[in-house]
Amino acid sequence: MLIDADDVADIARGAAILGAGGGGDPYLGRLLAENAIERHGPVTLVGLADVPDDALVVPVGIMGAPTVIVEKPPAGHEFGHALAGIESALGRPVTHIACLEAGGLNSMTPLITAATAGLPLIDADGMGRAFPELQMVLPTLDGIPASPMAMADEKGNRVVLETVDNPWSERLARSATVDMGCSACIALYPMSGVQARTGLVPETLTLAGRLGRLVTECRAEHRDAAAAIAEEMGGRVLFTGKVVDVARRTEGGFAKGTARLVGFDSSEMLLKFQNEHLVAESDGHVLASVPDLVAVLDADTGEPVTTEAMRYGFRVVVLGLPCHHRWRTPEGLALVGPGYFGYDHEYVPIAPHGKG
Amino acid sequence: MLIDADDVADIARGAAILGAGGGGDPYLGRLLAENAIERHGPVTLVGLADVPDDALVVPVGIMGAPTVIVEKPPAGHEFGHALAGIESALGRPVTHIACLEAGGLNSMTPLITAATAGLPLIDADGMGRAFPELQMVLPTLDGIPASPMAMADEKGNRVVLETVDNPWSERLARSATVDMGCSACIALYPMSGVQARTGLVPETLTLAGRLGRLVTECRAEHRDAAAAIAEEMGGRVLFTGKVVDVARRTEGGFAKGTARLVGFDSSEMLLKFQNEHLVAESDGHVLASVPDLVAVLDADTGEPVTTEAMRYGFRVVVLGLPCHHRWRTPEGLALVGPGYFGYDHEYVPIAPHGKG
Repeated sequence: MLIDADDVADIARGAAILGAGGGGDPYLGRLLAENAIERHGPVTLVGLADVPDDALVVPVGIMGAPTVIVEKPPAGHEFGHALAGIESALGRPVTHIACLEAGGLNSMTPLITAATAGLPLIDADGMGRAFPELQMVLPTLDGIPASPMAMADEKGNRVVLETVDNPWSERLARSATVDMGCSACIALYPMSGVQARTGLVPETLTLAGRLGRLVTECRAEHRDAAAAIAEEMGGRVLFTGKVVDVARRTEGGFAKGTARLVGFDSSEMLLKFQNEHLVAESDGHVLASVPDLVAVLDADTGEPVTTEAMRYGFRVVVLGLPCHHRWRTPEGLALVGPGYFGYDHEYVPIAPHGKG
Repeated sequence: MLIDADDVADIARGAAILGAGGGGDPYLGRLLAENAIERHGPVTLVGLADVPDDALVVPVGIMGAPTVIVEKPPAGHEFGHALAGIESALGRPVTHIACLEAGGLNSMTPLITAATAGLPLIDADGMGRAFPELQMVLPTLDGIPASPMAMADEKGNRVVLETVDNPWSERLARSATVDMGCSACIALYPMSGVQARTGLVPETLTLAGRLGRLVTECRAEHRDAAAAIAEEMGGRVLFTGKVVDVARRTEGGFAKGTARLVGFDSSEMLLKFQNEHLVAESDGHVLASVPDLVAVLDADTGEPVTTEAMRYGFRVVVLGLPCHHRWRTPEGLALVGPGYFGYDHEYVPIAPHGKG
């Protein structure tokens, strides 16, 4: 299957919904991807089943604070530079590109890399959503190392890491990302086709395209896009209201903060984010939290609203969508559950209305 | 010429004098070097003139805060790990090891690396003293890049940097050093034999050995070691007195602070340091400053006192010793002069008594 310029808007939009507020801006991602496809031609999308066992699969993405990334998009050469760093460290060529995470921009950066490098793109990602730290991928649960990992900036600097575990990759890469201006292009988790089949979430890009088209269709038919997305994903609508306050700060290379919403019935919701929305609370009760997806859509258009785009006055719908089942295991929750992020509430899985 | 275990104490002591308070603890350096020579045999020291034009020369050292390094010496495998990173990035084997800087520990780390790797050590260093930041070497004045640069820690993490200029190497490497626990083993400035002859300061280790022996001889003969060192180096004694206060902090991966001394005639001296002593002031007048060497010796034994070892009550002699002539050029002063470190005084070269 080929992805051409006409497909990218839907994929970017749908991936931004899966990005749970993070994973980068879908409009920026779409523009960069359309440009790359115009220059290099369409990208071949392959299913996990069609990846050879001995393939060298490398997921790529942009690491940093989304508030910065949206103002400092990549110049174009960074992903090629990062891939070359991986190839040099491993002594063999990369054969397939994959998504590290779902997200408006981070679904497009692999596509841009695949177009530029002339490599096939795998229809899968490392999380089934977006998360703020790089060890937070399902391959970590399989014991697959993040390193050798390469990072490149727009100035031409490159860092190649080989670390003793994935939290050490996160730690060293986060500092380098801050030095590089809170935004870096990364290539990491080099893996075989066998490992990709076990560790990656299948069909992320086709799901993103389907979700993205659903939003367009609902808009054309004056249907409720948020409800349609919730139904498609087996989640539910948590809240509808207006953004009345956003407090944000760039801290440790992350975009952190809170957003306060007031419902049309005067109820309140508090969203806590670190690149992604982590927790949705109402009147002191947690309605949804990591690892489940807290997604925010524009109430009128159904377009996803990322954490860096949240502004006073936006009318939004907040959705709770279920995460990949492996995140709900004890090992998954240890890596990405509320406790890791410093929250003391138990994780309560999101479920459709009537089942929660 | 061979360096064996009997030589290292003198070299470490003399290099610590040249280290101007920095470059690491000579006692620690000596112990590690004696151990390496016992295990791997003596090290071949070669003069710059004997290095083949097409050699691959790699200076090595420890980067970080001396206050931390003295409590967290390398485990042994780090330099080999860093060298392998350089070799992988360049695709060919390292042929010669060199000193990055003079210093009690950083004169010994190249010797340890050479012993362990079975490679010859070049009798030269990159500065003729020690400086706190890694772009502060004479090869920077020749346009020689610091990268590809490799850094390794005792846990087994490795970072390979390829940067657009040497200040970027410093910036990225400093952050990684902080992550690694304020101490990292580094290999950088890979250069040819031709470049080494132009860029390195010749005969650093033989000079260090001579200075180290001079201290021992003066002690045996009840002569004034500080005066003898000053005469040998063409510098002068600036101050004799007692340490009455040391304020130190670990900031940005450096050991920074000030030491206040009171003379036996009640005069005062203030030493300002960042790993190395940078400025020696008396009654508001600068008596010596970077790039010249401010060296502190124990008033009784003549042993060098590093910045991290300075303590209340120490009786010390402060020397001002001239730096390498290239540091006194406009380009040299732009890289390492008082202005770079934020001091607003002009640089006044140190000279022997009667000539200053």
